[in-house]
Amino acid sequence: MRRPIIGIMGAGEPGPGSLAAARELGALVAEQGWILLTGGRPAGVMAAACAGAKRVPGGLTLGILPGISGAGPDVDVAVFTGMGDARNAINVLTSDVVVACGVEGPGTASEVALALKADKPVILLGASEQASSFFKSLRTTGRIYEAGAPGQVVQIIERELGIKRGG
Amino acid sequence: MRRPIIGIMGAGEPGPGSLAAARELGALVAEQGWILLTGGRPAGVMAAACAGAKRVPGGLTLGILPGISGAGPDVDVAVFTGMGDARNAINVLTSDVVVACGVEGPGTASEVALALKADKPVILLGASEQASSFFKSLRTTGRIYEAGAPGQVVQIIERELGIKRGG
Amino acid sequence: MRRPIIGIMGAGEPGPGSLAAARELGALVAEQGWILLTGGRPAGVMAAACAGAKRVPGGLTLGILPGISGAGPDVDVAVFTGMGDARNAINVLTSDVVVACGVEGPGTASEVALALKADKPVILLGASEQASSFFKSLRTTGRIYEAGAPGQVVQIIERELGIKRGG
Amino acid sequence: MRRPIIGIMGAGEPGPGSLAAARELGALVAEQGWILLTGGRPAGVMAAACAGAKRVPGGLTLGILPGISGAGPDVDVAVFTGMGDARNAINVLTSDVVVACGVEGPGTASEVALALKADKPVILLGASEQASSFFKSLRTTGRIYEAGAPGQVVQIIERELGIKRGG
Repeated sequence: MRRPIIGIMGAGEPGPGSLAAARELGALVAEQGWILLTGGRPAGVMAAACAGAKRVPGGLTLGILPGISGAGPDVDVAVFTGMGDARNAINVLTSDVVVACGVEGPGTASEVALALKADKPVILLGASEQASSFFKSLRTTGRIYEAGAPGQVVQIIERELGIKRGG
Repeated sequence: MRRPIIGIMGAGEPGPGSLAAARELGALVAEQGWILLTGGRPAGVMAAACAGAKRVPGGLTLGILPGISGAGPDVDVAVFTGMGDARNAINVLTSDVVVACGVEGPGTASEVALALKADKPVILLGASEQASSFFKSLRTTGRIYEAGAPGQVVQIIERELGIKRGG
Repeated sequence: MRRPIIGIMGAGEPGPGSLAAARELGALVAEQGWILLTGGRPAGVMAAACAGAKRVPGGLTLGILPGISGAGPDVDVAVFTGMGDARNAINVLTSDVVVACGVEGPGTASEVALALKADKPVILLGASEQASSFFKSLRTTGRIYEAGAPGQVVQIIERELGIKRGG
Repeated sequence: MRRPIIGIMGAGEPGPGSLAAARELGALVAEQGWILLTGGRPAGVMAAACAGAKRVPGGLTLGILPGISGAGPDVDVAVFTGMGDARNAINVLTSDVVVACGVEGPGTASEVALALKADKPVILLGASEQASSFFKSLRTTGRIYEAGAPGQVVQIIERELGIKRGG
């Protein structure tokens, strides 16, 4: 059975809270044996989550890049799409669960929206009041969770993966 | 000089207010001589906007489809991408101005977000309080406008196209 | 009923024979009332075919661009994909019939191959012996035609469009 | 430094020679510590190459799928693109070297062509006379190699990776 893939999305230039949370969450994802997916660039939440995951022995990081080069140093498997933000759709289709580590920029907002469209479970970590109310206001059958800390995110993911396995 | 392309985005199953606005806006876009871009499916805001545009002599409608068939009857030029919601990125890159006719579902939300990411001017027509506050809360250099009626949308587009032409 | 879309593919830096054929074929496509699809850049076969089509009153040209700008002057409707050569798949899915005006470069070769994969009829105009034997050697259910002159291409297209309409 | 990614392309319904070669080549790629990339479906050359790689301890297989599900059992990291054959462009952009294990169907032909367009080194293993002459006839700066056996492919890859590292 394939290792689950957990997508951690977030801004290239996030606030400091998102960065620390991404690093911790990356490590927790790796400790569970899950593959970490990010947008792959050496910036912001992407870089912090990958760095966290690579502190853990056996941690495996997958980066889905917008360009044809430019993966961050902690990306093990770099997929170069050359299709700019159209690759955001691939990020969510490839993730079993999508986590937004802050919803600070439009790229992350697009990924949360695309995940809901694709019926992927979405976890908002440290989202603003505005982000949270907006995504809950959409007509969607997708499941949206809110979490205040990385540990809580892991619990939600475990439950979602259990549902997916029919467990 | 190419005719400008105005993207009208909206839900496949919108509320009645969005439908009426889309039809009127489609007609106004066509009357200005602009090309109307939609997601091309025979549903909701897409279909209503195209129907409006085709009431106007010379109206030209461009549909960017997620599948490899299934364009609505009022689409003149159907581009079949076969790439699902990844085509939302093409919708916004191809539009000179992006109009969200209601932000009711996650597909439209992703297009507004991708448009801001691509630095395209975005007009929210009849958006909810939540949608409006959320998009304004994002860190973006993109321009977000709000409009209450189709006629106001046209005025904003004219100004934006003037800026683009350096006028 | 939508106007058929005929894709004319060819090199950005073709030989002189391909250029002249592309210009003539573009005009013939427009005279039939068909929409001309090309890769949209101001170069080679793309530019020549569009220039030919725009000599004809009512000629309509659709360009599917790899980038986010840079359409040629004779493109009426420019679709900006921002996805590089991944857009070659869109070119063939959007065309009712695909014509390769010379198979001189790898981009055109990829479009012929993708068209066969998508079960689109393909017409090779002025193809080399090597191109012709190669594509016929592939395991495919796609229909491959060879033509020596633009007028012959039009006859094959008419027959194919008749088949598609169930005529 | 990231492990190199070697793409092995080939038909979903290949001849028996291609299947055996794909299995052996998959194992050799894994033994070198390289990541194996395929189209990810449980069929033909893709499946055989992955099965070969998974016989080797530490072998890592990456599948870039056309759909949103349906990865083969020997794919470790499944990237779901949902974009059909447009994903062929991603396959070649992500591979450091592209190997065609037979050029029997149009999908593989498109990948060889896209690889040449993207200036990726391409190795044709067991290609027909027609395939070989055709690809060499194209105007391209890409490097095309021919190999008769999997072991020879590995030697060419080693040389190419050395060039890439500036070695």
